[in-house]
Amino acid sequence: MTSLQSYACGRWHAGSGDAKTLHDPATEAVLGQVCPGGIDAAAVLQHAYRVGGPALRAMTFPQRAEMLKGLATMLHEHRDELIEIAARNGGNTRGDAKFDLDGASGTLAFYAQLGAALPAGNCLPDGDGVQLGRTARFWGQHVFVPRPGVALHINAFNFPAWGMGEKMACALLAGVPVITKAGTPSALLAYRIAQLVVGSGLVPEGAFQFLPGSVSAMLDLLGPMDSVAFTGSSVTGALIRGNKNLVARNVRVNIEADSINPAVLGPDVEPDGDTFAQFVTNVATDMTQKAGQKCTAVRRILVPQELVGAVEEALVERLRATKVGNPLDNDVRMGPVASAEQLRDVRAGMQRLQAVSDTVLGGPEPMADKGYFVRPTLLRAKHADAAVLHELEVFGPCATVIPYSGLGTDAVALCNRGGGGLVASAYSDDKQFIEQLVLGIAPWHGRVWLGSEKTQGQAIGPGAVLPASIHGGPGRAGGGEELGGLRGLHPYMQRTATQGDRAIVGKLFGREG
Amino acid sequence: MTSLQSYACGRWHAGSGDAKTLHDPATEAVLGQVCPGGIDAAAVLQHAYRVGGPALRAMTFPQRAEMLKGLATMLHEHRDELIEIAARNGGNTRGDAKFDLDGASGTLAFYAQLGAALPAGNCLPDGDGVQLGRTARFWGQHVFVPRPGVALHINAFNFPAWGMGEKMACALLAGVPVITKAGTPSALLAYRIAQLVVGSGLVPEGAFQFLPGSVSAMLDLLGPMDSVAFTGSSVTGALIRGNKNLVARNVRVNIEADSINPAVLGPDVEPDGDTFAQFVTNVATDMTQKAGQKCTAVRRILVPQELVGAVEEALVERLRATKVGNPLDNDVRMGPVASAEQLRDVRAGMQRLQAVSDTVLGGPEPMADKGYFVRPTLLRAKHADAAVLHELEVFGPCATVIPYSGLGTDAVALCNRGGGGLVASAYSDDKQFIEQLVLGIAPWHGRVWLGSEKTQGQAIGPGAVLPASIHGGPGRAGGGEELGGLRGLHPYMQRTATQGDRAIVGKLFGREG
Repeated sequence: MTSLQSYACGRWHAGSGDAKTLHDPATEAVLGQVCPGGIDAAAVLQHAYRVGGPALRAMTFPQRAEMLKGLATMLHEHRDELIEIAARNGGNTRGDAKFDLDGASGTLAFYAQLGAALPAGNCLPDGDGVQLGRTARFWGQHVFVPRPGVALHINAFNFPAWGMGEKMACALLAGVPVITKAGTPSALLAYRIAQLVVGSGLVPEGAFQFLPGSVSAMLDLLGPMDSVAFTGSSVTGALIRGNKNLVARNVRVNIEADSINPAVLGPDVEPDGDTFAQFVTNVATDMTQKAGQKCTAVRRILVPQELVGAVEEALVERLRATKVGNPLDNDVRMGPVASAEQLRDVRAGMQRLQAVSDTVLGGPEPMADKGYFVRPTLLRAKHADAAVLHELEVFGPCATVIPYSGLGTDAVALCNRGGGGLVASAYSDDKQFIEQLVLGIAPWHGRVWLGSEKTQGQAIGPGAVLPASIHGGPGRAGGGEELGGLRGLHPYMQRTATQGDRAIVGKLFGREG
Repeated sequence: MTSLQSYACGRWHAGSGDAKTLHDPATEAVLGQVCPGGIDAAAVLQHAYRVGGPALRAMTFPQRAEMLKGLATMLHEHRDELIEIAARNGGNTRGDAKFDLDGASGTLAFYAQLGAALPAGNCLPDGDGVQLGRTARFWGQHVFVPRPGVALHINAFNFPAWGMGEKMACALLAGVPVITKAGTPSALLAYRIAQLVVGSGLVPEGAFQFLPGSVSAMLDLLGPMDSVAFTGSSVTGALIRGNKNLVARNVRVNIEADSINPAVLGPDVEPDGDTFAQFVTNVATDMTQKAGQKCTAVRRILVPQELVGAVEEALVERLRATKVGNPLDNDVRMGPVASAEQLRDVRAGMQRLQAVSDTVLGGPEPMADKGYFVRPTLLRAKHADAAVLHELEVFGPCATVIPYSGLGTDAVALCNRGGGGLVASAYSDDKQFIEQLVLGIAPWHGRVWLGSEKTQGQAIGPGAVLPASIHGGPGRAGGGEELGGLRGLHPYMQRTATQGDRAIVGKLFGREG
């Protein structure tokens, strides 16, 4: 059994206090434990402020990009070892584990490439300069500069590698040291990656600290230059956002939380065409990949009334073919959910949805004596307007078909009932339908993914978060924003308007230098 | 005596409940009253959601820009009438009143010009499109779309015209209806402007509602598509940001609060040169304009030890020549502060600063039997590191000279002690000093203004907020951001990543259409 340690203030620490145990979710075997106490939060922060931050900012953007490239390569080199840990502690199939790990190394590599083209230094011009006075002498230039604080990253259990990697990539490239908190149930993978990061010597001391235990005490110590990025439930998100110290000191908080992601099938789509096939493939993938434990997974399947039969038939065929079991078995296509707590929540959530739905396939009944297994479950809503359909995120292999009229306005209204989401997807080859739908749902969704005939075989499905596009959404989804190319650096930087003699501000801070 | 009314749900309403009285701060005469109750907050919101928002978004950016142009022209046409109200209810000199009113009409005109060049529609491309897949077929385009909510604007008393105008300009151009709350002590001017706005018929019904009373009940009703922009004290700012409903529903909050703005004199500056003259003029202007009641006014004057004598002499000469009195008198250059409460706070604040400073000129002693008058007050810190110097915003005609070593690193450390500010200014012709200072203070200040030889006579001083540059600052200053050209529309819009066939997303939402 592994006792996970923290990497803090330049050395590895055993924790203290009541241990939390980590399990193999397929067998319930105990794999490790985390003792959450024994860390001096103030010392961790000071180490980042005094050692890590200055060391990072003594490097330039291209040098930090080179560091990210090294991290990406290192993760790739250890891929097989990490896949095995993901299977054992995360219940991940080989495909699930690759999705997580390649997401991490891919995002690091993306930011390495992006950073290589940035100016040597720490300062990014934001837009063009602008004349402020009657003559061009008095000039304005916006710049982004790294904030001399820390980035506290509170990761979710579902993507121990990717979640940690994508947040790290942005903060480190911006020049801000990272304190990363792993999601406890799957922390073995994050711990191993942390060991590799520290052991590599690629990241300056103090710029990366790793805590598998609690960071709630640290929230009370953060200051105006710090930021918190949290991925997890909206309940915990609200506790963080409402933290008295964070509110009083205007600490930046970036939250990515619950999302009842809709997928909309357009009324023009024929069941034997490429657009329909894409729709079915993507929905089935979202339902079963990572056992449905993706914040971007489809939860609501909006289908025109007359296509409901065809959709259900196609999805049932796919889901039936998805073998559920121990992910170490080669023919298994879906593993268990991550923990006993998740299993309980998913089952309870399914029951709440069943109260307003018919069960097309699966259901919450136990699957096995051991292991946190859940059946792929497809429901069909009895009434499209039942609140629970639009408000409850069941974080497992479960989605609900919601029949609708086929009208764009009705689809918009149903999508937006989610109260703010990470991603909505729509499948149609009718440009008018698409335009109406996108303009109607865009304010409520951080990302809108469009499937059509021509994207078949070309597009990466809506469940994947790509570093070139922002990730986050308004309202229930947390109101945050991550990634999106250079936009991903902004949460860690301050935008400042410089004003003065064009010969000075244009040269020093603009693109005229 | 005027009883101020609210404009809500399409008609003017008398309020109810205990009246607050509005005074002439020069004579203490009662001018009007506000009865804060009697407004149905839910009905006001519904009117904006159902009537104002759809009407605004049925217009295009250029059409809304035309509306702003009309508002700017209207304000200018009523300038003389409004100047008189500003003098009577705001204690404004003619110069102060013009600064406020022309700030409002200038910002409206700026956004009118900017909006005229935007696409016909409601959707703004954000950056260029980007290839997401292996081929260019799968394409990403970020777009900004208006959020179908309301913009609740809680304005400060010090700029009844400009504060209302700049916030309105951005929200209305973005396509979001406005509910504007006036700062009570000076609400007569805001009320008259609201009458003009409503009377003009320029703004669609429901897109502009005006409340001179309380809006605290409304905070508990806002939803994920709404936003709150607040200008005022950091204590009230924290109450708003911590509001349970706003936290739970991830309502956007944009705060502009306290700021202990520093002005730094470089060690290279000669007392007989243009850079020094500019420094003295700008500091004296900030101290006396609007009786020092500007959120951007200089509070801390950082002067190299050997220049302290020259700076004090020059400032004292300027301040002594500033006649204080009833702003309706032609030779008066500084009026009273806005209210009895402000007078009390300013005096108390001066006394707290005096505990760690010598008084060079002025002080908190009463000036007159009637009226909320305060002497222009210049202090000199005994110890540069006394916390109160860097943490207490005395919102009146008062600033403190803080002697420093002349080293850039020391100036940076002192500036940043403010814990986050709206604007820092620096005066130097030494580019190395300037670069070191700006890079050191930029993360802690939303705007950095640089005075040098060549900007003499060309630059608008640091106390003025220009619509082309962002306004706001981190930490104590609230962590918000307003204005800054198109950036000013972003708080009212959702950034959404669209992904799909390039022929669809590039054409519909990008610049390829």
